[in-house]
Amino acid sequence: MAMTMALFLAGWLLAWVGPAAAQLDERKLVDLTYPFDERTVYWPTNKPFQWEKTDWGMTAGGYWYASANFATSEHGGTHIDAPIHFGKGRSTVDEIPVQRLVRPAAVVDVTQAVVRDRDYRLTVEDLKAWETRHGRIPNGAIVLMYTGWGRYWPDKVRYLGSETPGDPKTLHFPGFSKEAAAFLVKERTIDGVGIDTPSIDHGPSRDFVVHQILNGADLYGLENVANLDKLPPKGATLIALPMKIRGGTGGPVRIIALLP
Amino acid sequence: MAMTMALFLAGWLLAWVGPAAAQLDERKLVDLTYPFDERTVYWPTNKPFQWEKTDWGMTAGGYWYASANFATSEHGGTHIDAPIHFGKGRSTVDEIPVQRLVRPAAVVDVTQAVVRDRDYRLTVEDLKAWETRHGRIPNGAIVLMYTGWGRYWPDKVRYLGSETPGDPKTLHFPGFSKEAAAFLVKERTIDGVGIDTPSIDHGPSRDFVVHQILNGADLYGLENVANLDKLPPKGATLIALPMKIRGGTGGPVRIIALLP
Repeated sequence: MAMTMALFLAGWLLAWVGPAAAQLDERKLVDLTYPFDERTVYWPTNKPFQWEKTDWGMTAGGYWYASANFATSEHGGTHIDAPIHFGKGRSTVDEIPVQRLVRPAAVVDVTQAVVRDRDYRLTVEDLKAWETRHGRIPNGAIVLMYTGWGRYWPDKVRYLGSETPGDPKTLHFPGFSKEAAAFLVKERTIDGVGIDTPSIDHGPSRDFVVHQILNGADLYGLENVANLDKLPPKGATLIALPMKIRGGTGGPVRIIALLP
Repeated sequence: MAMTMALFLAGWLLAWVGPAAAQLDERKLVDLTYPFDERTVYWPTNKPFQWEKTDWGMTAGGYWYASANFATSEHGGTHIDAPIHFGKGRSTVDEIPVQRLVRPAAVVDVTQAVVRDRDYRLTVEDLKAWETRHGRIPNGAIVLMYTGWGRYWPDKVRYLGSETPGDPKTLHFPGFSKEAAAFLVKERTIDGVGIDTPSIDHGPSRDFVVHQILNGADLYGLENVANLDKLPPKGATLIALPMKIRGGTGGPVRIIALLP
């Protein structure tokens, strides 16, 4: 019996130390964020990132001092669309509780489909195929659409899919379908979605219906997410922490993943 | 033997499911970030937070759309000082690996000392007293100085400790001492420090020597950290994710803690 108890305790300890260490295992952290600079891709109609040094050198006091100001739209680079962006009366970015920003990632790979159609929209069937392999989309999940578009970043012509990337009526890149958005809102319990393109609606969209449906249901969107090729389909934990702008419709977000 | 193995497995499963669930236990997440708005406290010489709606209402297309722009210094509100801020040639904010931003928190409570002296500087003895109670400061720790200053936020007169809060020569609030900064750099292996006041140097500082020492050693600082009263002295994991500004000297940071 003593040996039995010893084995029980050994099992407990072995298992406990494993995950506790993994939680802080730095080899398991991946940065899913593009830097903000003059090349950062913005929606064509939005104010791009501007950065200006205010101090940069030795002071009269004999020490080094460097500082800068910046200005930007809430929507550009790796950013979050808060529910209020397309959802009247819905949550602003500071109203999203941090509990909803640390969530399991469900990564749906559509890299093959977008080779055939650069305006591809993720279907309900794509979601169900993921579930057949990996089980039901977890409650509270962030559903990430992995298109492979990251290989075009930050080339605006290729990433926005247009020879005239400044004209929003000419864009081509993949996104979610209206039906998939409605399925996620009605048939599953998720907290948000994300994508490695400029928008959760595909390039040709004029009514941004996916934004309307998801934001309208008080869900958030993550756009221009980097390094989605580094994530497994299931098992990663996403930590997506946006700048806490009071009343903001979105904003810069730093996204990391903790791999399983 | 079969029962022994069954108990071993039961122990393993019980322990494994516990921490795995705890890692995502939303009751254990705390937000340590103040919102950015017109009341956010900035260093008196820095450009404050400016925010402007660009769209806010129903569009011609019949759907709701809201968006905004903002402009700010890299140093205000809950923000990070990247090592280059006071350390010539040291890391910019985008160069800090995410591995160094997910770290154990060591919280040093000096709330009693600051009642007697609002310009109190945390001493080497304060750090050693913490170690006597809680063990050696962990490698890779973020050392947080908890002064209780959060109760004054965002009252600029009280938080900056001056009837003339726009004049940086008149400020009064606690910070780290030069000796404590040198001790942390030379005698311990940490990744950064943080504080619930406007600066890791106390209000009367003119040479910002604590910034010089810590940034000079390629360590970062977190300033205006909120809700430090919610953290235990030891055992919390800090996740401090700054906006990824290329070449930035710092920037807005969203900080959360995972309680033990």
